[in-house]
Amino acid sequence: MSEPVLSPTARTTVRRLPERQRDDRAALHAVLDEGLVCHVGFVATDGTPVVIPTAYCRLGERLYLHGSPASRMLRSLKDGVDVCVTVTLVDGIVMARSAFHHSMNYRSALIFGRAEVVEDLDEKGRVLDGFVDHVLPGRAAESRPGNETELKGTLVLALDLTEASVKARTGGPVDDPEDMDLGIWAGVLPIGLAVAEPEPDDGIVDPAPPSVAAFADRRGVRR
Amino acid sequence: MSEPVLSPTARTTVRRLPERQRDDRAALHAVLDEGLVCHVGFVATDGTPVVIPTAYCRLGERLYLHGSPASRMLRSLKDGVDVCVTVTLVDGIVMARSAFHHSMNYRSALIFGRAEVVEDLDEKGRVLDGFVDHVLPGRAAESRPGNETELKGTLVLALDLTEASVKARTGGPVDDPEDMDLGIWAGVLPIGLAVAEPEPDDGIVDPAPPSVAAFADRRGVRR
Repeated sequence: MSEPVLSPTARTTVRRLPERQRDDRAALHAVLDEGLVCHVGFVATDGTPVVIPTAYCRLGERLYLHGSPASRMLRSLKDGVDVCVTVTLVDGIVMARSAFHHSMNYRSALIFGRAEVVEDLDEKGRVLDGFVDHVLPGRAAESRPGNETELKGTLVLALDLTEASVKARTGGPVDDPEDMDLGIWAGVLPIGLAVAEPEPDDGIVDPAPPSVAAFADRRGVRR
Repeated sequence: MSEPVLSPTARTTVRRLPERQRDDRAALHAVLDEGLVCHVGFVATDGTPVVIPTAYCRLGERLYLHGSPASRMLRSLKDGVDVCVTVTLVDGIVMARSAFHHSMNYRSALIFGRAEVVEDLDEKGRVLDGFVDHVLPGRAAESRPGNETELKGTLVLALDLTEASVKARTGGPVDDPEDMDLGIWAGVLPIGLAVAEPEPDDGIVDPAPPSVAAFADRRGVRR
């Protein structure tokens, strides 16, 4: 069992607006489980920082990335270079009376570390199901499972959730006292995900399966 | 006038799935204008890659970042280090018959370069209005404008849209031929942004202003 508390390191101590830092592991898991894509940052061999959006999943205290062994990002990471993985959820637009104090409500997670390759085929199988179920709970069981060729042809990397931070802003605008009576509208516009009607592939006549509703339930989305 | 076409460099040539690369500047602008946050990647002084989510806006062929002069990210970038800024929009969940071929529809933009500080107060003023109007078109004119103290107290950085790439996936699942008759539901679950009812700040009784509707219109969101 890992600690329920995130212990900040030099890299994960929030310096700007430290009151926005969360220190509980449950908050980290919640951000990771609700997000759809992460942004993976690494330093390319020429020294350039590169930020790539990609799918991910969390199982226990590990975050997993996957893809083709030909992926430049995965080839870099599997050599054990430093990586920063960021997941961001935007919850609302904060409208203040002054232009200056406009803001956003958000939750974000940063994870630092070095990824390692998952070689074990049983673990790889669980993880690849985890990718599908992360987005659409229950979908892996609805689908044709991965076969050995697919498992072996997929590079899976794991990053321990050891060095991580969570930051969030919630609540309404914070205006300067002298602006409060200007008669300017202020408040929060809450935003989130929406789904439209599922679009069946050619030849599909059945209604969408339960995993589609589970997508919406996990994320509290609108229809 | 800049070229209407994005000319790939070594850093912006899409290697994996090159058929997903777009080469028109209009596609770049569309992704940047629809997004709410970007992910900024840079290499910290200790060599660690860091990926920070932050607001941004595009005016012409420049992308702007802003914040407190005390921000670690902005202090790093203003020294002219290499930066990679990524904006990602997720448009749909692609459900294939096989677990392996599940995917997402998305549009993403990557911009490489070195940021420079915007010192001119007139330009800073236009840019700070641009940040507000990027999210909520027309909102800057509804708000109390920035004053000289606020302008001088905000660090604004500009990044030219010179070295950029756009990648997108659209359309339905691509299953293996032998999986087509398994009787497994397949298709696309379209997703996007939704807004809930605006939540007025204490003391606000007026209805939400036109900029709130403009937010939704720009992004085609649901209510």
